[in-house]
Amino acid sequence: MTTNPIRTGLPPHARQVFKGEIFEVWQWKQEMFDGTTEIFERIWRYPSVEVIATVGDKIMLEEQDQPDHPNFLSLVSGRADRSQDMLAEAQRELLEETGYRSDDWHLLWKEGGEGKVMHEVHYFAARDCEKVREQQLDAGERITLKLITFDDMLALADEPRFWTSPRFINRLLRARTDSAARDELHAMIFGEK
Amino acid sequence: MTTNPIRTGLPPHARQVFKGEIFEVWQWKQEMFDGTTEIFERIWRYPSVEVIATVGDKIMLEEQDQPDHPNFLSLVSGRADRSQDMLAEAQRELLEETGYRSDDWHLLWKEGGEGKVMHEVHYFAARDCEKVREQQLDAGERITLKLITFDDMLALADEPRFWTSPRFINRLLRARTDSAARDELHAMIFGEK
Repeated sequence: MTTNPIRTGLPPHARQVFKGEIFEVWQWKQEMFDGTTEIFERIWRYPSVEVIATVGDKIMLEEQDQPDHPNFLSLVSGRADRSQDMLAEAQRELLEETGYRSDDWHLLWKEGGEGKVMHEVHYFAARDCEKVREQQLDAGERITLKLITFDDMLALADEPRFWTSPRFINRLLRARTDSAARDELHAMIFGEK
Repeated sequence: MTTNPIRTGLPPHARQVFKGEIFEVWQWKQEMFDGTTEIFERIWRYPSVEVIATVGDKIMLEEQDQPDHPNFLSLVSGRADRSQDMLAEAQRELLEETGYRSDDWHLLWKEGGEGKVMHEVHYFAARDCEKVREQQLDAGERITLKLITFDDMLALADEPRFWTSPRFINRLLRARTDSAARDELHAMIFGEK
């Protein structure tokens, strides 16, 4: 039983009651409104990184198979389980999954972390990527790269095979119907023109 | 160590390695593309029910405090932890949280269940509700009821205090900008006119 406080968002007296491969379970005694207490429980999960990687005016999309999840589409993405440096994790995922690198990285926004399943997702732009070597996939990945336009990316909000966070779909939907939101998202990804 | 198959979506040889208050952790050996195996892990969480409850042409919204989550807005909702009958769970939550009941229930759609955190959310319409008794809140709830219009509900997509699934926000955004999606959602909630 490990005590906190390495996981932000948990009360200081929360205790880790299980640690698995990618999930931890934390519990604490929570005082209720009538003075009684109950056991409250939350899951901590390794953060993820999602990379909107650009080559010229195109965006990298992965067509992918995983052993328990065939035939889906995604951004460059992965589990940040090697370090707590999210930028380094994002750079590693880009290089391993695509063979590309960028010298122009920007943290765009962070999702999640709240609620009973604490799972942070860090979205980065990696602008003007260049290919520097071959893909280095691990045994659980089969990835084919595609280059798509900004409008293609917005259209992915309607694509059931596109595997991303529902909050990112919200951003795509807003950008499709609100020109200010569209311009803002475009500038975040490609930089100001 | 309990073996499956009570949790759909898990491979038959998955084993429960932890059971907490509201979460279970399941693991199995997954064969990778190169023939090696790795431990794969998923979380199962009690399903939730969300109720879009109507009174005349209005929809019930809850303004709520919970011990670890003050001052948020939500639909009538709760954890389905008493039975596997989602309709009965939704009817119980509506009666306890609001004191209202309905004789006209419709399962609208089901979310979630896929991914590494398996959490099903069942959305119901409870049409033409009538008050039959007082609220019966438990020690972890403080709930004030409001009646809002359909357009108010669509506007909640921009309200940070509105606590719901991001996929439901997607539906609200689509209904705001696509009149066919708007008419469809309205008919699901209030019935065909």
